[in-house]
Amino acid sequence: MPGTTRWASLPEFDLIARIKARAATREDVVLGIGDDAALLRMPPGHWLAVATDTLNADVHFPADTLAGDLGWKALAVNLSDLAAMGARPAWATLSLSLPHADGDWVEAFLDGFLALADTHGVALVGGDTTRGPLSVCVTAHGLVAEGCGLRRDGARAGDDVWVSGTLGDAAAALAQWRAGGAADPALRARLDRPTPRVALGLALDGIAGAAVDVSDGLIADLGHVCVASGVGAEIDLPALPASPALAARFDPAARADLQACGGDDYELCFIAPPSRRDAVAALAHGQALALTRIGRVVERRGVQALRADGSQWQPARAGYAHFAPAS
Amino acid sequence: MPGTTRWASLPEFDLIARIKARAATREDVVLGIGDDAALLRMPPGHWLAVATDTLNADVHFPADTLAGDLGWKALAVNLSDLAAMGARPAWATLSLSLPHADGDWVEAFLDGFLALADTHGVALVGGDTTRGPLSVCVTAHGLVAEGCGLRRDGARAGDDVWVSGTLGDAAAALAQWRAGGAADPALRARLDRPTPRVALGLALDGIAGAAVDVSDGLIADLGHVCVASGVGAEIDLPALPASPALAARFDPAARADLQACGGDDYELCFIAPPSRRDAVAALAHGQALALTRIGRVVERRGVQALRADGSQWQPARAGYAHFAPAS
Repeated sequence: MPGTTRWASLPEFDLIARIKARAATREDVVLGIGDDAALLRMPPGHWLAVATDTLNADVHFPADTLAGDLGWKALAVNLSDLAAMGARPAWATLSLSLPHADGDWVEAFLDGFLALADTHGVALVGGDTTRGPLSVCVTAHGLVAEGCGLRRDGARAGDDVWVSGTLGDAAAALAQWRAGGAADPALRARLDRPTPRVALGLALDGIAGAAVDVSDGLIADLGHVCVASGVGAEIDLPALPASPALAARFDPAARADLQACGGDDYELCFIAPPSRRDAVAALAHGQALALTRIGRVVERRGVQALRADGSQWQPARAGYAHFAPAS
Repeated sequence: MPGTTRWASLPEFDLIARIKARAATREDVVLGIGDDAALLRMPPGHWLAVATDTLNADVHFPADTLAGDLGWKALAVNLSDLAAMGARPAWATLSLSLPHADGDWVEAFLDGFLALADTHGVALVGGDTTRGPLSVCVTAHGLVAEGCGLRRDGARAGDDVWVSGTLGDAAAALAQWRAGGAADPALRARLDRPTPRVALGLALDGIAGAAVDVSDGLIADLGHVCVASGVGAEIDLPALPASPALAARFDPAARADLQACGGDDYELCFIAPPSRRDAVAALAHGQALALTRIGRVVERRGVQALRADGSQWQPARAGYAHFAPAS
């Protein structure tokens, strides 16, 4: 209590009361927000899937991101991980660090967070709010029927490489923002409110041999699948699906970088044998979602991007600089 | 990939490989670090307990805290929440934000984190590492037999109030550090490497009607129990257990503040009916851990601290300033 003996100075109590008042619950939540821990009832015959991701201001999102968009995105990136695992989302915890207590900001943040949570029937069951530089850490919990799930290690040479939706929009919005101009609203919406492909991930279990969500960029993320599976992949640059907004605003050279290497798309990249092409097509039709075959799994390690003439393409900036400055 | 289109610039891959190489596993971990999500096998007949807590530099710990101590503490505060729920710890995720990639720092951090994890058989099953101001978010998962667990809402008027171990050491170390002097090593150890009372929490299930861990300070945390239970409490200031180091270094007036209001002790405060005093004594003997009766639950709301003469004591600084500056 006395300021002199405490580091934390938690705003927990008021803010948590606000959060608790607004959070939906589920029948399987025995004890939600407000105790030392949440208590949750697992259905028999299922594994628990757990994903966690942190978003830091000026690192993972522009500092001018609206609170509601940040709330949405913080949950979306975690639901995207569950989607890539073929898990059905169930519960989430939220750890929110804020420079100062601001009830209006928190309410707006919750507008976005809970809108997406409600869409997927996710209950917010716990977390904390602390003072600190703006940062959001979400842990999402989902359910996978025992023996199921979409892992990264099931890609085999000869398989097809697929991607959902379109690629490059989020990176394009970020490029426009960095250039100092206003981002195209359609592109910026993809950056701020990505759509986790939850229904697709659930439907792919049994069709796809491996999957990953495109968060770091197609080549990087497909690379993780290839490493885990002990294979390589070739992607056909002209096959990468582009939104009308991206096609209208960026020439093919810039587009290639954004699509092959830009992150934050949160589409699913998945691997399936050619024998399942009809099943994938039926799925695309059933979900009214573009699923595009963009390449193939090969034995030679590494991920190669190929131009229309079959020559190898290199990103404008070769290599992925981990921990590089954000700008 | 290209720096211009990415905010994240994640150091994930190298650091996660280091972490994965060192993390122990468990038989019930179907899929651990390295996929989109962890897959975990729940034992039948149990509820899942989930707790999450973030520690931010200069807010929750002095910036000169050693990496190993921070690793320990980040897990300890979450295991303490599970202990206060009477849950058996099983798995944890770790979200680590670092200003720059520093392999030696991460190894030292893991020394502390994994030492405590190994003590409690906890498997580190996932997480992320991102660029940002130093911050650690841990989500801990535990198991509670169905129908069991130590909630906050079971305190009844006439019950005894108990606390484990000693109170005030962590706050005393922080006060010494803030005063610019070197902290007494015994006190500083309590601040840097708190002991989550996991075995005690498990043993209290069936004895205690309610429990909470002392993280924000005894009066504040006992207050949460009282609010949840619709009761109040009186604590006897002279009964609060003090370590020899605390007793030697602080006069009774300063001690009262540190013990009644200082946070970061991570002892358990629990409530049990007088009929269970023998059971509590047997537990203290069996675990070689002091369990001290410090007060009683009353009908009148609020938590009162009483001096030896029965008069009411007030903290030196009245009120709890949420989101107050740390210094």
